[in-house]
Amino acid sequence: MSEYNRKINFGAGPAMLPLPVLERINKDLFNYGNTGMSVMEMSHRSTFFMDILTETKNKLKKLMNIPDAYEILFLQGGATLQFSSIPANLVRKNEKIGYVISGVFATKAFEAAGKFCDAINIADSTKDNFDYIPEIKNPPSDLKYIHITGNNTAIGTAYKYAPKTGVPLIADWSSAILGQEIKVEDYALIYAGAQKNMGIAGLTVVIVKKDLILSSEEIKDTIPDVMKYEKLIKADSMINTPPTFAIYVLSLLCDWIMEMGGVCEIEKINQEKSQIIYDIIDAEDAYTSTINSKDRSIMNITFNLKNEEMTKRFLSLADEEGFVGLKGYKLRGGIRASLYNAVTKEETMRLASFMKKVASQLK
Amino acid sequence: MSEYNRKINFGAGPAMLPLPVLERINKDLFNYGNTGMSVMEMSHRSTFFMDILTETKNKLKKLMNIPDAYEILFLQGGATLQFSSIPANLVRKNEKIGYVISGVFATKAFEAAGKFCDAINIADSTKDNFDYIPEIKNPPSDLKYIHITGNNTAIGTAYKYAPKTGVPLIADWSSAILGQEIKVEDYALIYAGAQKNMGIAGLTVVIVKKDLILSSEEIKDTIPDVMKYEKLIKADSMINTPPTFAIYVLSLLCDWIMEMGGVCEIEKINQEKSQIIYDIIDAEDAYTSTINSKDRSIMNITFNLKNEEMTKRFLSLADEEGFVGLKGYKLRGGIRASLYNAVTKEETMRLASFMKKVASQLK
Repeated sequence: MSEYNRKINFGAGPAMLPLPVLERINKDLFNYGNTGMSVMEMSHRSTFFMDILTETKNKLKKLMNIPDAYEILFLQGGATLQFSSIPANLVRKNEKIGYVISGVFATKAFEAAGKFCDAINIADSTKDNFDYIPEIKNPPSDLKYIHITGNNTAIGTAYKYAPKTGVPLIADWSSAILGQEIKVEDYALIYAGAQKNMGIAGLTVVIVKKDLILSSEEIKDTIPDVMKYEKLIKADSMINTPPTFAIYVLSLLCDWIMEMGGVCEIEKINQEKSQIIYDIIDAEDAYTSTINSKDRSIMNITFNLKNEEMTKRFLSLADEEGFVGLKGYKLRGGIRASLYNAVTKEETMRLASFMKKVASQLK
Repeated sequence: MSEYNRKINFGAGPAMLPLPVLERINKDLFNYGNTGMSVMEMSHRSTFFMDILTETKNKLKKLMNIPDAYEILFLQGGATLQFSSIPANLVRKNEKIGYVISGVFATKAFEAAGKFCDAINIADSTKDNFDYIPEIKNPPSDLKYIHITGNNTAIGTAYKYAPKTGVPLIADWSSAILGQEIKVEDYALIYAGAQKNMGIAGLTVVIVKKDLILSSEEIKDTIPDVMKYEKLIKADSMINTPPTFAIYVLSLLCDWIMEMGGVCEIEKINQEKSQIIYDIIDAEDAYTSTINSKDRSIMNITFNLKNEEMTKRFLSLADEEGFVGLKGYKLRGGIRASLYNAVTKEETMRLASFMKKVASQLK
């Protein structure tokens, strides 16, 4: 990395890209695959781009073992727009979705859904500052879906497995998709903003079981066509110009993950990386964590120092070390180290050494 | 260009980027301005990116002389999503917007608006295959806005000046913004997909007079927050992660236009470029155009050959010449040469020579 004088980016997203992916972008920049142009300059209707789109879908299918009953959509508007699109496309006005309120974005998803359907709070850790994933106990029997946030980016918690509820699950897996194995059959729908483990901002990936989608006629009239899954599936995500370059970056990321041995191998590395940091949090008095240990995310690792002053000192020393993005989520404070796929084990060990050194300095 | 073996891209969008812009992207790719990372990898909340966002707004303000009464928004979802967002944010259910139906996208905008307000067809050239911009004659007196498509990308027509109607104008200027001077004060709202003269797909720019926007409370409950102008303005386009890299590319394009002498100078070049091609269409028997000559676009130049066979031959010879993107819009057929800002006068002259040569071959 030193040849480019790059920093180590522990930011929560938009996040670091693997160097081989940036190098490939660089190689293709003026002339992609002998087309005589950059991917940024290609018509979305050209065979060049259509090939990229199709290949990206196929690569994702393979990496995530996505069954044929599911469709992959490449959309705009972020996970936030999906907070509305999902209830708009999956439930009728009086049907119920149960929401697990496990963090900041889970709450936002719940609030948006209330405008489309009967959104029910079925488990909630708000009063405990979201320090754990609340358990779903005796949910109403007439829920059509249950919505979970697979990984709570702002908090640092995550589900290890899909909760067994007997109700089809919808999950925001933004920060962990492609970073840990997710069994697609466990879900009715999975969605993710790309700017963590799937590339760059401006692309949202939706993986949805096709037979669950309402027809466009059943959906509210004022829902724009670019939000209607049925129409989007028919148009292969191209009702209008899709975010072509972001789709290409996802394609490169898929290649890179395959070269690394697939999601299973990537998850092993991510487990090791997170363990290295959690071990230091547990061993050093300088660091504390209020997060329930069984709910710890392997992607976003949050911890605190004894006071605001020490937090500032930590961040300032980190900055000198060439580490960026370690500041905690604005409403949470403290430190957050995001160890997405692009952060190498060696880089994680550099953070670990730094944390040990600083812990002794801040005693 | 030959060093990269690039083709000349006359596509209608996503379209060619100026080579100096691609070179700048290349220079910044691994380490933008000594931040130690690519723009793609930056947190949207970092001071690095916030500076890019603010500077991009300031550059656009300067290039387009945007008065302070207007706000610039950087959004996702394309002009197509704005077809819904505009009526949702500007008019109440029974208020009227008059639509000029001058092309394919004008029709789509009209159809989407009907779900939010009383959308009135006030001028229509559908029956004449959109070959001219229909004149607005005696519009209803109670229109709140009139919507026009400034440049009809699929057709090859454009307004030279904002029509004088006495009613505030809303305009889709997707294909001509930054390519010709647009007097912002003439409009209540201007919107544009970025993938023509403003960079890459995935970014939509909205320039809106702030005092015309409905409050979020007045807007339908089921309109997602990322479509609500009032909320977007308050959040400086960052209700959620914006398409950061596309905003940066727009910033680079603004720099390049300034270096070229501003929009006024760019327009002069674009006028010259289009005249070179229109002169050949008018002079050569091989080429015909049904477009009303006073409505000719300087951005998208459409013409026909005598039959389908000759059109195919033209496209095949163009391909051999290293020209791409000349095929007409799918529902129109024929040829379309898009001469956006990135297409140089020299490249236009190469197309002109080619057209002359082919005209004599196809006699």
